[in-house]
Amino acid sequence: MTSDPIPDPAMTGGVRAGERIIALPGRFDAQLYFVGRVRTPWAKRAECPRRGDPLAGPVCTLEIDPHWADALIGIADNDRLQVLYWMDQARRDLVLQVPRDGRALGTFALRSPARPNPIASSVVTLLEVRGCTLSVRGLDCVDGTPLIDLKPEHPPG
Amino acid sequence: MTSDPIPDPAMTGGVRAGERIIALPGRFDAQLYFVGRVRTPWAKRAECPRRGDPLAGPVCTLEIDPHWADALIGIADNDRLQVLYWMDQARRDLVLQVPRDGRALGTFALRSPARPNPIASSVVTLLEVRGCTLSVRGLDCVDGTPLIDLKPEHPPG
Repeated sequence: MTSDPIPDPAMTGGVRAGERIIALPGRFDAQLYFVGRVRTPWAKRAECPRRGDPLAGPVCTLEIDPHWADALIGIADNDRLQVLYWMDQARRDLVLQVPRDGRALGTFALRSPARPNPIASSVVTLLEVRGCTLSVRGLDCVDGTPLIDLKPEHPPG
Repeated sequence: MTSDPIPDPAMTGGVRAGERIIALPGRFDAQLYFVGRVRTPWAKRAECPRRGDPLAGPVCTLEIDPHWADALIGIADNDRLQVLYWMDQARRDLVLQVPRDGRALGTFALRSPARPNPIASSVVTLLEVRGCTLSVRGLDCVDGTPLIDLKPEHPPG
């Protein structure tokens, strides 16, 4: 976990020198359901670790909405899951970004939360399933982040 | 590439014995922009390989909408990308599924296209960038599939 107190402009709405925003399209093309929430120890973006650790990271919780309970049948047989979540605090109109430690890069050349569709993907270790609550290691997002999908993670190859 | 001619019920709207559908929520929670299209050799779901191969798979193309051109700056420096796309032919209300070769499993215990939010994630090898067109290996989706995100893929650890 980082203790870096500097707010991240990508999350707070600020735009740094050298960054570029564009007009967003006038319409959306598809729609999402939130299927649950992620519970983590981090209340604010600035408290989050830079990258989740599926082995040594703290235990976090995926709370699935009971509406989708049947979709969890058999999930306990997996050691690793891919979790997709919605970074609802991120701005979506930033196409060129200047990371704190680097040169300006296009949004698609970065894993920054600020992107046209702020979907994050994390691989987590599954520790326990109790009803609609899953205990996992490997997340790095803010407490309360909306969950959009989970699926087995297969090793590459 | 498989030549299996059996249509996949998850893609064609059919439901197999033992499968379960539920009522979808009455409202959506978030919205997506399509940022481009995926071009592949496969016109129909039944023609697609089961899993893309980032080394030996055929060359496919990511056509990014020029609206997002600046978001591609610097992307050519990456060897591997994570690509998120929208499986627009998949049904979203199937919570228990019976794979052709197995027992009934919940949707979150499967990587089936049929899921509440039909977002697929593939890791591809980036071969070439020409303007807003990227040549890649590793996809397994239908030609014309809407693209929702791309970002550098970092090895785990």
